[in-house]
Amino acid sequence: MKPLPGFRDFLPNDYARRDYITSRWRDAARRFGFVEFDGPMLESAELYERKNSGGEILTQLYQFTDRGDRPVALRPEMTPTLARMVGMHHRTFTKPLRWFSIGNCFRYERQQRGRLREFLQFNCDLLGERSPAADAEIITLLIHLLKSFGFGPKDFVIRLSDRLVWQHFLEQNGISSDKMTELLAIIDKIEREPEEKTKEKLATCSSILSLKMIREFISNPEDSALAPLLSELSARGVREYIQPDLSIVRGLAYYTGIVFEAFALHGGLRAIAGGGRYDNLIYHLSDGAASLPAVGFGMGDAVLLEFLKSVPLTASQEEKYINAQRPCQIYLVIADETYRSETVALASQLREKGWRILFSLSPERVGKQFAAAQDAGATLAIVIGAEWPVMKVKQLSTREEIEMSCDALFQRLDSLFHA
Amino acid sequence: MKPLPGFRDFLPNDYARRDYITSRWRDAARRFGFVEFDGPMLESAELYERKNSGGEILTQLYQFTDRGDRPVALRPEMTPTLARMVGMHHRTFTKPLRWFSIGNCFRYERQQRGRLREFLQFNCDLLGERSPAADAEIITLLIHLLKSFGFGPKDFVIRLSDRLVWQHFLEQNGISSDKMTELLAIIDKIEREPEEKTKEKLATCSSILSLKMIREFISNPEDSALAPLLSELSARGVREYIQPDLSIVRGLAYYTGIVFEAFALHGGLRAIAGGGRYDNLIYHLSDGAASLPAVGFGMGDAVLLEFLKSVPLTASQEEKYINAQRPCQIYLVIADETYRSETVALASQLREKGWRILFSLSPERVGKQFAAAQDAGATLAIVIGAEWPVMKVKQLSTREEIEMSCDALFQRLDSLFHA
Repeated sequence: MKPLPGFRDFLPNDYARRDYITSRWRDAARRFGFVEFDGPMLESAELYERKNSGGEILTQLYQFTDRGDRPVALRPEMTPTLARMVGMHHRTFTKPLRWFSIGNCFRYERQQRGRLREFLQFNCDLLGERSPAADAEIITLLIHLLKSFGFGPKDFVIRLSDRLVWQHFLEQNGISSDKMTELLAIIDKIEREPEEKTKEKLATCSSILSLKMIREFISNPEDSALAPLLSELSARGVREYIQPDLSIVRGLAYYTGIVFEAFALHGGLRAIAGGGRYDNLIYHLSDGAASLPAVGFGMGDAVLLEFLKSVPLTASQEEKYINAQRPCQIYLVIADETYRSETVALASQLREKGWRILFSLSPERVGKQFAAAQDAGATLAIVIGAEWPVMKVKQLSTREEIEMSCDALFQRLDSLFHA
Repeated sequence: MKPLPGFRDFLPNDYARRDYITSRWRDAARRFGFVEFDGPMLESAELYERKNSGGEILTQLYQFTDRGDRPVALRPEMTPTLARMVGMHHRTFTKPLRWFSIGNCFRYERQQRGRLREFLQFNCDLLGERSPAADAEIITLLIHLLKSFGFGPKDFVIRLSDRLVWQHFLEQNGISSDKMTELLAIIDKIEREPEEKTKEKLATCSSILSLKMIREFISNPEDSALAPLLSELSARGVREYIQPDLSIVRGLAYYTGIVFEAFALHGGLRAIAGGGRYDNLIYHLSDGAASLPAVGFGMGDAVLLEFLKSVPLTASQEEKYINAQRPCQIYLVIADETYRSETVALASQLREKGWRILFSLSPERVGKQFAAAQDAGATLAIVIGAEWPVMKVKQLSTREEIEMSCDALFQRLDSLFHA
């Protein structure tokens, strides 16, 4: 009676945390003028075969044949759906497009800590603009987002690189363009693989290029290609978060310019988001229906949830948000069952005004009703009994109590809440 | 390059409509003290085989074997997941539970107008309370929800019945309990099937019971069993929406008490939501882990979207909500490119304050920038040029223009928006 391995139940408390994350995601994207879209959870499997971005995703695909004999797959990521939609409809939109999505994605990952098979993914993409200003908008959005969770410069950096810089370096060292992708994949893994293995792999690609040369290049980056972007980021007031770092390559073959990742400075030192420029992918994925330069990033909810726990300020901010969303604002305490139908009528009126109201559905001791009010996070308890139509209105935090009529209640309710 | 048949793309405009619907759903549920939960999109196929509620759902299941050889299925509805979660965790929660969910569900339906294979489903369930007060809470929630869309008594009714009333009638007519489900399924289809077919089916179940007797029972309902619920609904101020109607049986075998549906009075005369009491299902689905009486309803987004279009008041209310969510509040117009970096810095400051800001990422004629501002739904345009640090602030609806400094802007921005 458990969920499948790698899948999660969101009990109300877990859901509240997820809601906090998605509300921050939406809010940050919208401040940058991004609009939300969504697509189907299930797509034709062909859509993912077309992308073929390194192959790993294809081996993790939830793929099957539907009752109409179509090869279908649960989406492992949003970008192919985005490309499909933009391919169909881009002519009806003014460029650039600023689109974001928040959606479940599915990958059959090997089971290990923090690896999920169903996860929530936030994607922001700016399409139809080739300039570094677009890159800067996307990176600044990511930084504003992380700041909105309460993270600061001691908590994360944006490690920034550019695949064009690498291409230039590799060309200068006699690497032909067909070896480029393979070599970038080797460089991507330098930090994670044993030196011997890297050297071996290098040798199969090039007789000139050595690990030492690559290490030297990384430590002395000729970062002039990044200068226009860095200046855009300075104007946006976020330069302090940027760490140019050529060791960031990102394994995905489709990146054509800058690549970056938001890197956590504690709590496990991991990438919590990553992205880059992909000027050819939309053309490729849409089968030529649209040719739009693009830059974007993606962020999953699982790593972020872990990272949020590691910083006290963000945790208290999260708690504050969640408390403001508690199930009940006003609890109606029935002190005398004679007045149950009056209470129920009052509940309806208050709910129609938009208040979140609870009361006990069956006769219950007053003390127990107050306990339920606390439990549900109520701010006010209104006691209804023999004094009706006069009621006692009690602030649960201060225990202060005022008597008032129904009319007075409706007039004063807003101010009682902001007291 | 299209979505699979029965699946939908949500372009930003479609997404905005979906967001409107889900925001009303959430808001109504929360006013009744309900809390949101969610579960996996993919579950063990066994979970659905266990329910076996009439069999139709099983023939429509998206079922396959995953890479770990598990029989799995995309969820066709939320209730089995709810039962699984409640079965695992109910001891940690005070009863009654008021839980709601908004989630995608999947059914391989035959292709016809309005039938989708992936749809959004809103479910509200009140668990652990057997009294008619719980039934009344659920039905009142549904009515408040429909009212919050702008629907009134001319647009919908709640048709209400009780399977206990039917069971009593059938027992009195000598129907044994093993024939009960079959007979209720026949009665459920009376309005939709040819008379001859109904008569034939009836004859196989009972030699006593005739279609005429059933019709008479429906037209003279002995509705005393509904009296306590009707009185609860009157106290809640929603009696005018209720139409006791014994022809409502709802084909699902698991209902054990009241059943109801919200029925559209125009635009196709269809059920837009349905539910009832199911006191044994949680026990059955949770394999005995939890025994909780329950009442709830479900509502899909597809029929609702159609119904919303049919009522002008609801359409204008929807438009108002969507307009308030437009991608941009303030558009920064760069009249002199010399001040681009000042503009970009101002955008960052405004975004950090929470405003939704856009500006052109490349040099553009002022007229075209104003057109983009309109297009994105901006309320204000701020023109930045040679007068910097003084700016022109323009209300786009009235074309009114004021000059002000940066400091004044930040001080007056709120009031400019509520002018």
